[in-house]
Amino acid sequence: MVVIILQYLAMDKIEHIGIAVSNMDAAKATWQSLLNTVVYKTETVDNEQVSTAFLQAGPNKIELLQGTHPDSVIAKFIKKKGEGIHHIAFAVTDIYAEMQRLKTEGFTLLNNEPKNGADNKLVCFVHPKDVNGVLIELCQERIF
Amino acid sequence: MVVIILQYLAMDKIEHIGIAVSNMDAAKATWQSLLNTVVYKTETVDNEQVSTAFLQAGPNKIELLQGTHPDSVIAKFIKKKGEGIHHIAFAVTDIYAEMQRLKTEGFTLLNNEPKNGADNKLVCFVHPKDVNGVLIELCQERIF
Repeated sequence: MVVIILQYLAMDKIEHIGIAVSNMDAAKATWQSLLNTVVYKTETVDNEQVSTAFLQAGPNKIELLQGTHPDSVIAKFIKKKGEGIHHIAFAVTDIYAEMQRLKTEGFTLLNNEPKNGADNKLVCFVHPKDVNGVLIELCQERIF
Repeated sequence: MVVIILQYLAMDKIEHIGIAVSNMDAAKATWQSLLNTVVYKTETVDNEQVSTAFLQAGPNKIELLQGTHPDSVIAKFIKKKGEGIHHIAFAVTDIYAEMQRLKTEGFTLLNNEPKNGADNKLVCFVHPKDVNGVLIELCQERIF
């Protein structure tokens, strides 16, 4: 007997919103004050040349992002557009299956394989040109 | 005896993210495909000169926004910056208390009283100049 389990693919929730900031200390103070909470984690992701700080808002997170190098993606983003929202990350249960589904739907993925992101995640980005100018991240908890 | 209940003020969750779009029909198709779900509600908010469409992602929503007039806030936003994320809305339990708290913290509110928004909400906006270029909305379910 062959049992096939059909998983319903979807975005589980907004895992976090990434905000590009030019002064991390000032941004931490701002967002702590706005959300009336504290930064619970900071992390530097060397391969992305970015330092991050996380705040919780119920089931969701705000991820502050500061470039660690003038050539980093975040530093370039700020130079071009100023500080602001950089991406929306959706939590997914099976990143490989979601990537396949989105490719089939005609979306352009910015990486062909999931890569390591901050906060112990496997991540993949969808090109903003396909999503009304919004950079979308898929993320899934990494299992060691 | 006087009983004082001190409510812990905070943002409960990301209620929705508002996305400015120039072609609502195309945007609906895009986001339905991205999130693998359907638009469950559309609504026009006359006082904001905007038509909206909502999609669910777990506890969060995506609100697509298209201006209904060339002078609308959304049409002007797109003219200046292109399509993209317009605001982040946080759900709050007591919008009056949160507005007072944020004023005390030094944030600039764009309306002094809560106003009627889409999706049966009372809303208030915080100036992006105080929040790393991000337009923040507070929203609370309106009780008739």
